[in-house]
Amino acid sequence: MSVPTWKWFIEYTTETQAHMHGISKYIYSGQTRFQTVEIVETEFFGRCLILDGKIQSAEKDEYIYHETLIHPAMVLHPNPERVMIVGGGEGAVIREILKHPSIKKVIMVDIDKEVVVLCDKYLPEWNGGAFQDPRVNLFFMDARKYLEETQETFDVIFSDLTEPLDDGPSYLLFTREFYEIVYKKLSPEGVMALQSGSFNINLIDCHTAICNTMSRVFPYVSSYAAFIPSYDAQWGFTLASKKIDPGDLTEGKVDQILQERKINGLKYYDGETHRHLFSITKDVRVAKEKENRIIEDDNPLFTF
Amino acid sequence: MSVPTWKWFIEYTTETQAHMHGISKYIYSGQTRFQTVEIVETEFFGRCLILDGKIQSAEKDEYIYHETLIHPAMVLHPNPERVMIVGGGEGAVIREILKHPSIKKVIMVDIDKEVVVLCDKYLPEWNGGAFQDPRVNLFFMDARKYLEETQETFDVIFSDLTEPLDDGPSYLLFTREFYEIVYKKLSPEGVMALQSGSFNINLIDCHTAICNTMSRVFPYVSSYAAFIPSYDAQWGFTLASKKIDPGDLTEGKVDQILQERKINGLKYYDGETHRHLFSITKDVRVAKEKENRIIEDDNPLFTF
Amino acid sequence: MSVPTWKWFIEYTTETQAHMHGISKYIYSGQTRFQTVEIVETEFFGRCLILDGKIQSAEKDEYIYHETLIHPAMVLHPNPERVMIVGGGEGAVIREILKHPSIKKVIMVDIDKEVVVLCDKYLPEWNGGAFQDPRVNLFFMDARKYLEETQETFDVIFSDLTEPLDDGPSYLLFTREFYEIVYKKLSPEGVMALQSGSFNINLIDCHTAICNTMSRVFPYVSSYAAFIPSYDAQWGFTLASKKIDPGDLTEGKVDQILQERKINGLKYYDGETHRHLFSITKDVRVAKEKENRIIEDDNPLFTF
Amino acid sequence: MSVPTWKWFIEYTTETQAHMHGISKYIYSGQTRFQTVEIVETEFFGRCLILDGKIQSAEKDEYIYHETLIHPAMVLHPNPERVMIVGGGEGAVIREILKHPSIKKVIMVDIDKEVVVLCDKYLPEWNGGAFQDPRVNLFFMDARKYLEETQETFDVIFSDLTEPLDDGPSYLLFTREFYEIVYKKLSPEGVMALQSGSFNINLIDCHTAICNTMSRVFPYVSSYAAFIPSYDAQWGFTLASKKIDPGDLTEGKVDQILQERKINGLKYYDGETHRHLFSITKDVRVAKEKENRIIEDDNPLFTF
Repeated sequence: MSVPTWKWFIEYTTETQAHMHGISKYIYSGQTRFQTVEIVETEFFGRCLILDGKIQSAEKDEYIYHETLIHPAMVLHPNPERVMIVGGGEGAVIREILKHPSIKKVIMVDIDKEVVVLCDKYLPEWNGGAFQDPRVNLFFMDARKYLEETQETFDVIFSDLTEPLDDGPSYLLFTREFYEIVYKKLSPEGVMALQSGSFNINLIDCHTAICNTMSRVFPYVSSYAAFIPSYDAQWGFTLASKKIDPGDLTEGKVDQILQERKINGLKYYDGETHRHLFSITKDVRVAKEKENRIIEDDNPLFTF
Repeated sequence: MSVPTWKWFIEYTTETQAHMHGISKYIYSGQTRFQTVEIVETEFFGRCLILDGKIQSAEKDEYIYHETLIHPAMVLHPNPERVMIVGGGEGAVIREILKHPSIKKVIMVDIDKEVVVLCDKYLPEWNGGAFQDPRVNLFFMDARKYLEETQETFDVIFSDLTEPLDDGPSYLLFTREFYEIVYKKLSPEGVMALQSGSFNINLIDCHTAICNTMSRVFPYVSSYAAFIPSYDAQWGFTLASKKIDPGDLTEGKVDQILQERKINGLKYYDGETHRHLFSITKDVRVAKEKENRIIEDDNPLFTF
Repeated sequence: MSVPTWKWFIEYTTETQAHMHGISKYIYSGQTRFQTVEIVETEFFGRCLILDGKIQSAEKDEYIYHETLIHPAMVLHPNPERVMIVGGGEGAVIREILKHPSIKKVIMVDIDKEVVVLCDKYLPEWNGGAFQDPRVNLFFMDARKYLEETQETFDVIFSDLTEPLDDGPSYLLFTREFYEIVYKKLSPEGVMALQSGSFNINLIDCHTAICNTMSRVFPYVSSYAAFIPSYDAQWGFTLASKKIDPGDLTEGKVDQILQERKINGLKYYDGETHRHLFSITKDVRVAKEKENRIIEDDNPLFTF
Repeated sequence: MSVPTWKWFIEYTTETQAHMHGISKYIYSGQTRFQTVEIVETEFFGRCLILDGKIQSAEKDEYIYHETLIHPAMVLHPNPERVMIVGGGEGAVIREILKHPSIKKVIMVDIDKEVVVLCDKYLPEWNGGAFQDPRVNLFFMDARKYLEETQETFDVIFSDLTEPLDDGPSYLLFTREFYEIVYKKLSPEGVMALQSGSFNINLIDCHTAICNTMSRVFPYVSSYAAFIPSYDAQWGFTLASKKIDPGDLTEGKVDQILQERKINGLKYYDGETHRHLFSITKDVRVAKEKENRIIEDDNPLFTF
């Protein structure tokens, strides 16, 4: 009789819903100034980064999350040269951004240096050497403050943040005021993309509130979503644009742009995947239409 | 300090992956001739039917599963009059089928009468009175035997089965030989649809094997998939067709047919949802291309 | 590969300590006016009664709990004729009491009639027909009120209650005021025994507070404890006496009394077991000496 | 709404019984040549050493386990000068042994040097500097081989081993043949003590088999047991003696010997504790009487 797995990470999505991940090895466990960090080896998903009790990315499927966050926005912009990342800990977002040959400069601003250092040490494949690329600059500070003070503008700004927990570091980066700052720092054809909460229809209010808030700031705001196995959920993203209509990005056009840019090695994203990601099921569309919440600094959003 | 939830249903997808559902009330627990049955009230998803330790459907999102299984096939067929269901326990599939006005006869063949009776008693909204519709006939027997012996043919045949567990009742309904029987009993424009395993890229071999097997029997075989929150997974379905190409079913055509048939009340399925369901991400397409397994009676498929 | 157990009852003793019991069958689940009730079949301990999320007794080891609660007090009293039980739901306490041949009358006062009826239906071996014994009287009302109003006195009074949860029915039956009422209703050689919380040294404050409180009312108060496997804990009991010193009850005397009373069939209790139960380890004795809390109606005790 | 604890160690005692320990911090996780090792900080019990998925000792209650294992044997022997430990990883057994002033030499033979080094690094209070005591010698090798080859004899031999798992390092140290080797290496008044399995009446066969096996080798064999909260169980020990009858060790005599040896600081063990430990409840005595298994090298004992 074999002994069952005895080390578990249990991720609660609500007080009565949770996912259990059997752990084969604890790699690192600590507390930074901003959040708790665990790096564990799970039997099923390989190495995982866990911040404040939530899986951020897993070896076996981080390609889904990171390709989904990065490429739709990068493909939408005709010539992305200057890109900024709000958050971005593991560095995998930079790895994906640098696949686009027009890139001249990438600035990543993450408040938690310790997490970035730990990821570089224990999850080096995530950034794939991107931190050493001469076009990349890392700043460890509050990204909102950075954006307010910088004189630069960006073609694409990504927000790759943990969920807005009430004692976590990110909740002021999900408000109307923050999106207004982003808007100002985008170049005229600028685009923003971000992860924006679960697509589980019973937990969708976080996503719909973010989309509704952004639609007060940007003329074009599109929801999209990918199933991330290690999240046990279809996860929502938002693409916002100042001038270019994301609705014009057809399946064929996506494939054509990827080909022109000689981006061949993607595992998840291409034209048909784009069509899947941006086709929204009826129940979610209905939920979005009903949403009228605007997230603001003095009325922030918190998730469980 | 509040006491945490103490009644849990833990659904294992592998030995080291599981989902925990907090239970507010146990409704029914028993063992039929074929499988164990629990009906529980969960805090998050409402009432759930659990067979052999796997959630089959949940009050809060059974509409996703059942609309996804039924409507693509029904819309693809120009005039579905005679429909058969292999399995179908809860009766929600009939509820959806009867929304199509052309229906003249529905035959449901489920091996486990006890489950059907329990569902009708404890989950009556699932069938919504469909069992009493005069066009509906229930048979409690082995569906394969029924199909082999019947003289009838059907416009659409649905397979709504539990997963093929090695000691469960359904594994001989997932083989090439079975699909050949189905093929023979379909009318010339006949269509088949079935649930066909997880779309989790690390567990996709069940789905790809079913599709590959069916492609030896049917000229047209399409994968599609929906995220089912209570399964904590994107779930795969397969649509097979004798003559009509599912690829011709565009978003606009789906909406037009639903309108013509005066089917307005769906919560999940419409043209855009159809586009989402049938657009397959690149990683899954690659996995499908690599698949060469053919499931046969003497080489059956078993899942965990 | 066998599928792991999927139905679990998880009993939390603190927010970060819990015991998992695999369930083979849900028998009953409901909510009375006073508490939630589950009756389940566990793989390991057989049938279990669970009130407000806490196992009360289990088929495989209820003999330990019930013999431990009943026989020390019954043996201590030279001629127990009239006995009262505060609580007592399952009826197993009466089953044990009736083994003493001097018994003329047993009064059990439990506030929750539904629990008693459910136990009699689903756990009939627990009472073993005792509810039908002509010497037994059941009252369904607040036991404190009953004691205050009755004109009777008793030789032994047992308290067989659930733990004092803040929204549970029993917390006013663990106070100095209540023990004073008990004292008055005991005959001159009267004895009281009760379950009184975990003996886990890290959770012992419940037990020590009860003992300290009772020592303000009774001249003789002794702690004793038994390991109850289904509680995953050594569990505390308290024996209080008006006149007879429990310290005089030696191992030999216990065996002699049991023999005189022709009580041969006990599975757990005899002279040597008595010596084990009443020998207290040094760490617990130290904790008891430090305790100065007195539980009172306006300063009641609540456990997790 | 607070987020529940998300890091758990789940210790299975059977396939359907388990204990959950919430973890505040992972300290160390690794695999030695012989076993897996985790050192974790639990919320409730402080630091814990876990070998092959089983808690070996916990900061908050290791004193119970170690005082119980060591002092009865040490007190029984009139003048223990030379002591050997089979196993003993954490070194806490030496800490307790050295409290007896007659000690001249302690030899500890543990097969797993890595565990000893890890314990010294992460759990230094366990050995309390004992590894540096000049009377102490550590050997890292198979203890059975050591005993077979040594020319020395010992007054007391302790066995402080993990449970005999079928792929673990200890099962050949629980057989008749091994106890015969121990017998030969004991001085004429020699004594042996060991941990010997759960006292849970439903899992007692491990303990009773060990006692029965030892009684074929030693003239005096006594069971005793202590409740160890972090084991969630009353745990069995065995005391075997060549010449001195453990039954003569009364409560008063224990206190007298401890006083003579000026051992004042024990937290758990004294005369009354001794009486508690060595008084065995009736159900266990009955189980012991029925036991006739003899554990031998070619018929070894394995636990779950």
